[in-house]
Amino acid sequence: VSTEAHRYAAIAEAISDLIRGGSLQAGDALPSVRSAALQHRVSKGTIVSAYSTLEARGLIEARPQSGFYVRGRLNAGLAVPRSEIKYPKVVRLDQQTQVRDALGDLCGTHATSLGSSFPDPSLYPLDVLGRALVANVRSTEAALAGTDLQLGLPQLRRAIAQRYLELGYVVPVEEIVVTCGGTEAISLSLQAVAQKGDFVLIDSPTFFSGIQLIKQLDLNVIEMPTDPQEGLNIGLLDQTLSTHRVAACLLMTNCHNPLGFSMKEERKQALVEVLCRHDVPLIENDVNSELHFGPRHIRAAKAFDENGMVLHCGSFTKSLAPGFKIGWVAAGRYVSRIVNRKFATTLGTSIPPQTAIAHYLKNHSYDRHLRSLRRELQTRVNEMSQSVARNFPAGTRITTPQGGYVIWIELPPGTDSMALFEMAVSRHIGIAPGPIFSPLGSYRNFIRLNCSHNWSSKLEETIKWLGSAVSEIAAAAPAESRI
Amino acid sequence: VSTEAHRYAAIAEAISDLIRGGSLQAGDALPSVRSAALQHRVSKGTIVSAYSTLEARGLIEARPQSGFYVRGRLNAGLAVPRSEIKYPKVVRLDQQTQVRDALGDLCGTHATSLGSSFPDPSLYPLDVLGRALVANVRSTEAALAGTDLQLGLPQLRRAIAQRYLELGYVVPVEEIVVTCGGTEAISLSLQAVAQKGDFVLIDSPTFFSGIQLIKQLDLNVIEMPTDPQEGLNIGLLDQTLSTHRVAACLLMTNCHNPLGFSMKEERKQALVEVLCRHDVPLIENDVNSELHFGPRHIRAAKAFDENGMVLHCGSFTKSLAPGFKIGWVAAGRYVSRIVNRKFATTLGTSIPPQTAIAHYLKNHSYDRHLRSLRRELQTRVNEMSQSVARNFPAGTRITTPQGGYVIWIELPPGTDSMALFEMAVSRHIGIAPGPIFSPLGSYRNFIRLNCSHNWSSKLEETIKWLGSAVSEIAAAAPAESRI
Repeated sequence: VSTEAHRYAAIAEAISDLIRGGSLQAGDALPSVRSAALQHRVSKGTIVSAYSTLEARGLIEARPQSGFYVRGRLNAGLAVPRSEIKYPKVVRLDQQTQVRDALGDLCGTHATSLGSSFPDPSLYPLDVLGRALVANVRSTEAALAGTDLQLGLPQLRRAIAQRYLELGYVVPVEEIVVTCGGTEAISLSLQAVAQKGDFVLIDSPTFFSGIQLIKQLDLNVIEMPTDPQEGLNIGLLDQTLSTHRVAACLLMTNCHNPLGFSMKEERKQALVEVLCRHDVPLIENDVNSELHFGPRHIRAAKAFDENGMVLHCGSFTKSLAPGFKIGWVAAGRYVSRIVNRKFATTLGTSIPPQTAIAHYLKNHSYDRHLRSLRRELQTRVNEMSQSVARNFPAGTRITTPQGGYVIWIELPPGTDSMALFEMAVSRHIGIAPGPIFSPLGSYRNFIRLNCSHNWSSKLEETIKWLGSAVSEIAAAAPAESRI
Repeated sequence: VSTEAHRYAAIAEAISDLIRGGSLQAGDALPSVRSAALQHRVSKGTIVSAYSTLEARGLIEARPQSGFYVRGRLNAGLAVPRSEIKYPKVVRLDQQTQVRDALGDLCGTHATSLGSSFPDPSLYPLDVLGRALVANVRSTEAALAGTDLQLGLPQLRRAIAQRYLELGYVVPVEEIVVTCGGTEAISLSLQAVAQKGDFVLIDSPTFFSGIQLIKQLDLNVIEMPTDPQEGLNIGLLDQTLSTHRVAACLLMTNCHNPLGFSMKEERKQALVEVLCRHDVPLIENDVNSELHFGPRHIRAAKAFDENGMVLHCGSFTKSLAPGFKIGWVAAGRYVSRIVNRKFATTLGTSIPPQTAIAHYLKNHSYDRHLRSLRRELQTRVNEMSQSVARNFPAGTRITTPQGGYVIWIELPPGTDSMALFEMAVSRHIGIAPGPIFSPLGSYRNFIRLNCSHNWSSKLEETIKWLGSAVSEIAAAAPAESRI
C-alpha cells in the first residue's frame, strides 16, 4: 500500500511539474486513465488517485464524458484584482494620519481567523524542532562563551549562507546577522539606512506591519502602484526616483503579501540596476520566498546585488518554525550599522531557537519539508479560491498567488470591507480589510484571506456566509459607488 | 552521609543568615567546634564542615590557637574604591564622542575572560530548561493562535506578576511586557520616554551597554556621581533636576553593575518621590536583583511607584536562563507606548524560551535554585577578592558587592587600565577596563572583574599575573599622576 501511495504521489508530482514548467499548457488534455496506467505500469486506481490529487490542487479539471484537462486559470475562473493606486502617492505619516493599528490584532483573535497573517502551525515540524531544542540546550554554554551574540550563532549563519548557495546565489556569511524574526530584520534595516523624516518607497498594497514600522520610526512613505501579477513598474520607479529624494525602498519581491506575485528574475535585476543608479538601498522583505509554488527555487533581487545595496531580510517563521521568531538580514555594505543597532536594541537573539534551527537544517531534509508544505498550501489556497468563486457575488476578483497562503480579493465596487469586517467580528470571523494595507486607507473594497487552514465544511460555511454578507453590503452601497 | 551533608549545609546557612542579618557582628567569636557539636547534636566533623564552608565563602576566619571569628570586612581587607565623578557631568554624545565599542566584545573572546559581563553558564539549570523546552513545544501552537505576541506569553506574564508578589510588592500583569532580554526592555523604555537629543540621567560608572544604547538612540547623558556603597546622592539628584531638563533616569538599583551595591529601600523610596516631584520617569535596570546576597528578598524602586512612573526592567538571563534572552518591562503608565514600539521593532518574543521559563517557574523551585546560585556566586566573589588582595600592589581598592558576580577595582593612582587591557589581551586574558563604563572615558585606573567562574589554580595564576602587571604599569606611571 505504501509503495502504491508513494507512486501516485510521484506521478502527481511529475505532472504538476510539467504544468508549472509550461510543458503542459492550459486546456491540454491529460492521457486517459487507461493509457496513463499502461504508460506508468501501475493500476488504474493509482492514476485515478494521482488525477484526484491534481484536481484537488486546482491544477487539472475533469470534463464529463471527456477526460482530464489542464486548468486554464488557477484563480478559480475569476478575474484578477485591479490596482487601485495609479500613480506614486507621497504620504507624510504625521500625527494626523490614521494608521489603523488595532485591526491587525483583532484579525487573529477569532475562532475562524482568516484575517491573521500567520500560517497554520500544524503544517510545521514542531516535534522535530522540539527534539532539536533539547538535544542542543547544552551548546548554549558554548555559544555564550563566544562573542557572536549580536551576529547570531555561527553554525546558523553558516547554514543560512549555505541555503543561499542552494537557492542559486552567493551571500557571504559575514553579511548575515541573525535577528529576532523578520520584523527585527526589516526594522534594523530601516534604521540603518533612513533618518527620521526620510521617505521610504513602498509597494501598494503592502504588508500591514511594514506601515506600522515606518510610522513608529517617524519615517514617511511614497506608495507606488503595484501590478497584482508583476509587481512594481520599474520605469515608473526610475522616474519617481529622479524627482523624489528617497532613503530606501522596502519591497516584497516573492510570494508578495497580500498580492501573491513573485517578481520575475529579469525584473528583479532591472530593479537592482535602477536603484543602484539612483544610489538607493533596497530593503528586500523576502520572508515568504521558500513558499514559492514553482518547480524551481526562485532567486531574490539580492542575487543581482553587486554593490552591497540590498538588505535581504529572511525568516524561518513561515518556512520552518513559527513562534521561534528567528530571522536574519544579509545586510550588504550596511552590516556594521545593523550590528551596532542590534547591540543597542536587543543585544542578541535567543540562543536555543537558533541552535534548534541550525540542527534541523543540518540533520533533516529542509527541502522535503518545504515541498510538502508548498503542496499543502497550494491545495488549501486553491480550495478557498474555488469556494470564494462559488459563494461571492459577481464582480468579485481574486489573485492567483504564486506562493504563500493568502488571497487578495477585490469585492464588487462600493462594497465597504470595513463594514464587512465589523459584521464578521460579530460572527467571530476574522478577515483582514483592505484599508490596513495602505497608509491612507485605500482598498476600501478589498479583503485578504488566510488560506493556510485545512479545508473543512466549517470553512465552506464561513466563506458562504462571507459571500452573502458581501452581496448584502454591495447591494446597499450608494449607486454612484457601484459604477 | 546525605543526612550529614544536609545538616552541615543547614548549619552553615543558619550561621550565614545570622551574620548577614547582623545578629553576629564582625569580630564576634563563634562557638567552639565541641560546644557547637553538642548544641546542634551533631558530630564534630559536621561542625568542621559547616565552618569550612563559611570560611570558603569569606564570612568567617580561623585564628590560630583561638577559634573561628566573623570576618570584619568581606572585601578582603582592602579599602573601598572612590567616586571619580564629583559633580553631575553633562555629556553630549555627538559624533565626536569616542564611545568605546570594540572592547566590550573583546573582553569575552578570551580563554580567561574576566572582562565579560556574562555569568558562568554552568551555574544554571540548563538541562531542566531543555526538558521544559521540549515538553512545551506543542504549546507554541496554542500561543500562536492567541494575540499576545507583542505582550508575551500569558502564562509567563502571570508568573512574573506572581514573582513580584513573592518579592513583596504588587505589579499588575497588565503592565508587564515580555521582551527579547533585558536590553530590549531598557531600549524600548528609553524609546518610550525620550526623543532624539533628550538628556538621560545615568549613574556613574554605569553598565557598558547602557551607554552604547543611549548613543545609538541619539540621546545625551547627564552622568551623576554615584557612591560605590550607597548609590546616587538623592539630594544632588533633586538639585540637578531643578536646573536641567531630563527625559528620564536610567539607574541600576540592585546589585549594581559594576559597583555591586544595592540601594537601601528608604533611598529607593526617596528616589521615586524626587522623580515624581520633577515628573521624570525612572527606567529601573533591575536585571540583577535576584542575585542579592542578603537573607531576604530586596524590593526595587518599582515597589514605591504609585504613579506608574517607573519602568521596571527585569531579565531571566542572569537569574535562570542565560542565552534564552527573555526579559520584561513592567512599564507603568507607558505600557501602550512600549507595545507599539515593540510591534514595530521585533513584533514579539521567541515563544519556546518563554514556555520553557514559564514551565520552570511553575514546576520547579526557583527559590532553591537562586539560593544555591547566590551562595556559589558569593563564594566565588570572595575567592577572587581575596586573591586580588594577596596579589595586587598597595593602593588597590575593591568593592564588596552585595550581590551579583563582578568586583570593581581601583588601581593605584596613575595606573592606566587601557595599557593593562592591552597587555592582558596579549596573554589571552580579558578584563573590562574602567573607561568603558563612562561616556567620556573616566575611570582610567579602574577595572571590573567577572568572578562567576569556579575558582582554580589557573585563575589564581591569572590574578597573580594581573597583579604584577598592575605593579609594573603603576611604577612606570609619571610621578604627578601618582599623587
